[in-house]
Amino acid sequence: MEKVSVFGAGSWGTALSYVLAQNGQDLLLWTHRSEQADEINHQHTNKRYLKEIALPEALKATGDLPLAVRHADVFVLAVPTKAIREVCADIRENLDKKALFVHVSKGIEPDSLKRISEMIREEIPEEWLEDVVVLSGPSHAEEVVLEHPTTVTAACEDTKAAERVQDLFMNHYFRVYTNTDVIGVEIGGALKNIIALAVGITDGLGYGDNAKAALMTRGLAEIARLGVKMGATPLTFSGLSGVGDLIVTCTSVHSRNWRAGKMLGEGKSIDEVLTEMGMVVEGIRTTKAAYQLSRAYGVPMPITDALYAVLFENVSTKEAVDRLMGRMKKNEMEDLINLL
Amino acid sequence: MEKVSVFGAGSWGTALSYVLAQNGQDLLLWTHRSEQADEINHQHTNKRYLKEIALPEALKATGDLPLAVRHADVFVLAVPTKAIREVCADIRENLDKKALFVHVSKGIEPDSLKRISEMIREEIPEEWLEDVVVLSGPSHAEEVVLEHPTTVTAACEDTKAAERVQDLFMNHYFRVYTNTDVIGVEIGGALKNIIALAVGITDGLGYGDNAKAALMTRGLAEIARLGVKMGATPLTFSGLSGVGDLIVTCTSVHSRNWRAGKMLGEGKSIDEVLTEMGMVVEGIRTTKAAYQLSRAYGVPMPITDALYAVLFENVSTKEAVDRLMGRMKKNEMEDLINLL
Repeated sequence: MEKVSVFGAGSWGTALSYVLAQNGQDLLLWTHRSEQADEINHQHTNKRYLKEIALPEALKATGDLPLAVRHADVFVLAVPTKAIREVCADIRENLDKKALFVHVSKGIEPDSLKRISEMIREEIPEEWLEDVVVLSGPSHAEEVVLEHPTTVTAACEDTKAAERVQDLFMNHYFRVYTNTDVIGVEIGGALKNIIALAVGITDGLGYGDNAKAALMTRGLAEIARLGVKMGATPLTFSGLSGVGDLIVTCTSVHSRNWRAGKMLGEGKSIDEVLTEMGMVVEGIRTTKAAYQLSRAYGVPMPITDALYAVLFENVSTKEAVDRLMGRMKKNEMEDLINLL
Repeated sequence: MEKVSVFGAGSWGTALSYVLAQNGQDLLLWTHRSEQADEINHQHTNKRYLKEIALPEALKATGDLPLAVRHADVFVLAVPTKAIREVCADIRENLDKKALFVHVSKGIEPDSLKRISEMIREEIPEEWLEDVVVLSGPSHAEEVVLEHPTTVTAACEDTKAAERVQDLFMNHYFRVYTNTDVIGVEIGGALKNIIALAVGITDGLGYGDNAKAALMTRGLAEIARLGVKMGATPLTFSGLSGVGDLIVTCTSVHSRNWRAGKMLGEGKSIDEVLTEMGMVVEGIRTTKAAYQLSRAYGVPMPITDALYAVLFENVSTKEAVDRLMGRMKKNEMEDLINLL
């Protein structure tokens, strides 16, 4: 049994807490809304994010961040990308021992172009930081709490740290594989949200499954091309955190990036979409970061460019997609070969 | 303009004829049912396979196979895998000149373990055979005839032959890329039907999108592992005829292999499924062939084995899937690394 605190009680933070509590870890879930902590502790539900699901009684929540920091040796950060630095700063203020940081967020910081593990390393002084592990893969929270079979990857350069996270989470319905390629896992997880937005747009425009599959295929290729340039292992993109996560994000109605894209394709404005969603759409911020990364690393990323044009340059969705589908390329391998 | 005959007026043969006729090729579509040829010539429909779609008037059909052979220099074979040898033999009887053979079927012959291009080369004497090109990719016929954007791969060792096929089919909604890896394209196209059956089973059992994405990821890995052992280029499995076709086949309600799997997962017997489908389910024959190939090449293929157990050894779907999901593997890369 390990002492673990999860920060962030959205759907994914709560689902991971469900798994940890069920596995018998000594768990505390922090949320910045104390009424949500009360609901979890007394009603054993988190209705805003996980509807009628009955949470384990061992899943305890708190609104008191210093308490959550003092409680544990392992911190699981399950907050949106743009809250990572702030939560790390709050944790830092209260740290009095070394801790292992696990993050499950999927994004890249625009302008700084930092991956999430890099942001954590910048915010937490080395003497308090045992290591950073990223947990990622095809995993809708809604299915995890129904105990449907799910497989994810825990990545850290230090295999021992990844294995410690594997042991924390692994059970009969939640299977964790280890990987040492942190860059590949973080880039795959973040950038698949762009492809999900693009696929949602084609679905909203009424194009079919053929277009969708082509876009996902080309999308995976451009993500891998960038990732490899940044130092990732090509094979990671063929794994759970690469193609696996891409598939689940692009083909499931649970995916909020896909839903946001669909609304854009149907003709709604970005402001209307954001208002209607009422949740963070990571893919929008990530599109900006990926657009910047493609220029910083000199990697052509046509799908990212098309999406950037829609989101930030007022190009119509139809024009952007048609331009993309119509790109003339004679030889598939020419394009794919740049992967390796 | 080229003279082209398409053999087989199922949904895919008809959709390809639609594209060829629209592109202004001198096209003749052969079907063994003369009443179907009459319907296509006079009503300009093929209701059994493509419902209410209006076919171009330039799309002419015939029930006369010798006429179709005499008509063309390019033959497109769009018949089920198990009819390939018979149709080739009938064509051979009537050949009086060299012809380019294009095939669009997706399967492997059980026992002989031949790919389709190999079967064609065995049946057509070299002096009549200009070359064999395989056309494959994520492409539901139903969407092609609606002129939704579709992208496919034309593969031949001789790039010139692949480019000739590219020129025949390419238009604004049907985009053709060339590739020289015939083995990779044929293996990817054939074996994705196995994964579609397996994914259909998990859907029928009520498992979710997380399980589905995991199964597709591991499935692509085992197909690539076998393909590379057989001589394919690893990157082909990251392309349209690999991951692209896998995605469309596993996530679309149009897919008959997925539908057959779903019925199996819901508890129907194989006989009931085949009766209800009333169409060929290539994945069932292909499972047998892939099971034999995995042994012939010494490549572990756990998903293929699980499906074989369900189809041919009377193991229950639930037992087979649970066994598969529960397989203990500590390191994802260990498994994927065998790809290269």
